Amino acid sequence: MIPEVSSLQRRDLNHVWHPCSQMKDYEDFPPIVVKNGKGIYLYDENGKQYLDAVSSWWVNLFGHANERISTALTNQSFLLEHVIFANFTHEPAILLAEKLANISPKGLSKVFFADNGSSAIEIALKMSFQYHMQKNKPDKKRFLALTDAYHGETLGALSVGGVSLYNEVFQPLLLDTVRAVGPDCFRCPFNEMPESCSTPCISYVEEKLKLHHEELSAIIIEPLIQAAAGMKMYPLSYLKKLKELCLQYDVHLIADEIAVGFGRTGTMFACEQAGITPDFMCLSKGLTGGYLPLSAVLTTEDVYQAFYDDYESMKAFLHSHSYTGNPLACRVALEVLQIFEEESTLDEIKEKSAYMNEQASHLFKDQPYIGEYRQTGMVGAIELVRNKATKEPFPGEERIGYKIYRLALEKGLLLRPLGSILYFMPPYVITKAEIKAMIDITNEVIQEYFETVQLNQEVFEYEK
Amino acid sequence: MIPEVSSLQRRDLNHVWHPCSQMKDYEDFPPIVVKNGKGIYLYDENGKQYLDAVSSWWVNLFGHANERISTALTNQSFLLEHVIFANFTHEPAILLAEKLANISPKGLSKVFFADNGSSAIEIALKMSFQYHMQKNKPDKKRFLALTDAYHGETLGALSVGGVSLYNEVFQPLLLDTVRAVGPDCFRCPFNEMPESCSTPCISYVEEKLKLHHEELSAIIIEPLIQAAAGMKMYPLSYLKKLKELCLQYDVHLIADEIAVGFGRTGTMFACEQAGITPDFMCLSKGLTGGYLPLSAVLTTEDVYQAFYDDYESMKAFLHSHSYTGNPLACRVALEVLQIFEEESTLDEIKEKSAYMNEQASHLFKDQPYIGEYRQTGMVGAIELVRNKATKEPFPGEERIGYKIYRLALEKGLLLRPLGSILYFMPPYVITKAEIKAMIDITNEVIQEYFETVQLNQEVFEYEK
Ligand SMILES: Cc1ncc(COP(=O)(O)O)c(C=O)c1O
Ligand SMILES: Cc1ncc(COP(=O)(O)O)c(C=O)c1O
Repeated sequence: MIPEVSSLQRRDLNHVWHPCSQMKDYEDFPPIVVKNGKGIYLYDENGKQYLDAVSSWWVNLFGHANERISTALTNQSFLLEHVIFANFTHEPAILLAEKLANISPKGLSKVFFADNGSSAIEIALKMSFQYHMQKNKPDKKRFLALTDAYHGETLGALSVGGVSLYNEVFQPLLLDTVRAVGPDCFRCPFNEMPESCSTPCISYVEEKLKLHHEELSAIIIEPLIQAAAGMKMYPLSYLKKLKELCLQYDVHLIADEIAVGFGRTGTMFACEQAGITPDFMCLSKGLTGGYLPLSAVLTTEDVYQAFYDDYESMKAFLHSHSYTGNPLACRVALEVLQIFEEESTLDEIKEKSAYMNEQASHLFKDQPYIGEYRQTGMVGAIELVRNKATKEPFPGEERIGYKIYRLALEKGLLLRPLGSILYFMPPYVITKAEIKAMIDITNEVIQEYFETVQLNQEVFEYEK
Repeated sequence: MIPEVSSLQRRDLNHVWHPCSQMKDYEDFPPIVVKNGKGIYLYDENGKQYLDAVSSWWVNLFGHANERISTALTNQSFLLEHVIFANFTHEPAILLAEKLANISPKGLSKVFFADNGSSAIEIALKMSFQYHMQKNKPDKKRFLALTDAYHGETLGALSVGGVSLYNEVFQPLLLDTVRAVGPDCFRCPFNEMPESCSTPCISYVEEKLKLHHEELSAIIIEPLIQAAAGMKMYPLSYLKKLKELCLQYDVHLIADEIAVGFGRTGTMFACEQAGITPDFMCLSKGLTGGYLPLSAVLTTEDVYQAFYDDYESMKAFLHSHSYTGNPLACRVALEVLQIFEEESTLDEIKEKSAYMNEQASHLFKDQPYIGEYRQTGMVGAIELVRNKATKEPFPGEERIGYKIYRLALEKGLLLRPLGSILYFMPPYVITKAEIKAMIDITNEVIQEYFETVQLNQEVFEYEK
């Protein structure tokens, strides 16, 4: 059945090629035209309301069209919208760099700006590599990454990613990354329990380090949550051990906090919980509260000094984007960090995430198709499974997450899944009542799917 | 001599690592703290004025802190700052895609958004590659690029770049790109004259195509001007022949119009002048008039269809950035395109560029250290040479461009050079009087350099 489309929808389909989409899917599910947003809600062209439970790809922190942030943006735009960032600078970038250095794990004192998350990853990889070249370790030219990792989709970032959906077809264009099996707490091969886990799975990394450390420049990881993998969560002890291994084997640690930074895991940065300082920390997404692309790579004085020399030495680190250090985005980011302070956002997150955990754990615990409800800070995930006892997953072709997502949209909930994992990653301004509504609607659509849609489908498939 | 630095400058140096910079240079030349901008001028913390002759890395079109654009941005920011762009859309993106398709070379009807220029390049490379895979041509996995090309600095974009300054140290991380010698009109190896040139240098590309076409997915070029190479300009007949060769050898043509798009060469897009439609056209920089990072890859229905299939075919093109299709940036871009129409900007460019050419050609023609003044549209370049007859260049170590740049800054002119090439690429709102001032100050500082600085330096070096 081909649905009726509005004029804007038709015009969209005529010219827009959407990301992360098979455009043919849009034939019977045309794109939703969002007209405006307010707080945690989005409104489409017909005024229908959607609760943005995924913070629009994990970027929004303080709600859509936030008065305070929009005012800061406005003021900056009439003062200075942009300026070349080589040999030139401006107050928003200076104050932002200073503040980021102050709130980051101790030792990360230098800030290199870029504009999107993938570029921050590329910068960290290139800096680590060039560092070793300039320290006379030219063999250190490979990277180690975890299975199921996601670090962006430019070729460098994609090379360290481990989600085959994104990089399989592009293999011939990618770097030869050393891959270690990452933590998998839900299907732990060591049968450890979260409470008592001694992270034996770090041995997978250790093995690879033993074998390859001489040719390894850096290990890159998503601290505490492998987000795009399906919100796979792991304990902080893993990070501690990883940091020790990096020191032992003289390999840099790159912490990709693009998805988990800025309070998502309950602390400002996930690395904090493990008390570690990585050699590079990549930030983006929430940095601007979901307003604008901006990213930053924080690093140490040691790294900075390896590039600091007379011009003639040709040791400078060269990587620029036209909009590096954009004043509009930097000013917005400053406002975001000020909101964190003035509104005690981290305290609020603590309270709200405890509430979310309580409500969701209770509701989702004993359901037949829910293998697990897990949560870290303001990220909660429901893993749907075909068989609860064996944890057998649903096959990808079934597109179970996608189907439930569409049911949820009908009910005004934006709940974009990752395969068969549904997750909550709402803006921090969500209230407890809204958290409850989000969880309840999710529960409803899961029930609806298994009680009606899936049954009908089985009948339908049987009839074929 | 270490100059006195302001408090903001010190704070900058404490934490900010600037792009495209040896930070040690900042010891005796601290970063200029820009407080505000207006029209073609930037103002530092002491109120000193700088004429932005390089449009802040080629992005600004209609002046700094442009009232009209800032107002559009403001309005959008209170309506909808951002929304996930998979399955969702919004008016600014729809109207922008439609408008871009309408003003682009015929046949470019599909628009894939990203956020920065490098990402647009990565998308074009990945799309071209996957297209061929899905057309059962899996051998087509390499790219052909020109010497001295610049396409950005993420690893994919850097792989097709040919400026060794940016990619030499990173060679072990880069793709094995097929490289053809590009056009070099100033030092033409065929001794052709611009008026009568039959672009014999296209043979360099043809040779490589003959040899490698079976393994080539696409050729990527900067149409009409190789910008970062030092504003190397070449005739449109080269583009025409290139397009023919691409058809003949079944290789995509990627036109990187990131620097030259939006009027820079005198027409909306440089490809227009040659009457060709590339398979991919990458846009960024001027797209938002210098306000915000946004980019777009335009492509054909043929390419789109190669990815359009049932979900299960797994043929979708996957490449997303968190801020893909950002409504704030799209709204700003729409305003920029509206200014083009309402203010007849292209006519204005014609007039102003003719005036610039007249003034500059006249002034720079007979000077001993100026090998050539060349211009295409609103891009003018002065190539400094040690020997005018032999065109012998100045050695890089002399940093002649950098030194003249610093002299120009003292006089309130921002004229960031590329090696020993000085160039003009001002915002289109520059007046004729300001064009004259820009050229005159440039002339002054060139004279000053050769009459005093260089002489002193020779004496100084002799004394050592
Ligand atoms: C021709 C060309 N391509 C690509 C880029 C890269 O764009 P960005 O700096 O936004 O990554 C540039 C930027 O300088 C450019 O001039
Ligand atoms: C952990 C992680 N790293 C990197 C990225 C890439 O950032 P961007 O989408 O801005 O390029 C993402 C974005 O989804 C991410 O989740």
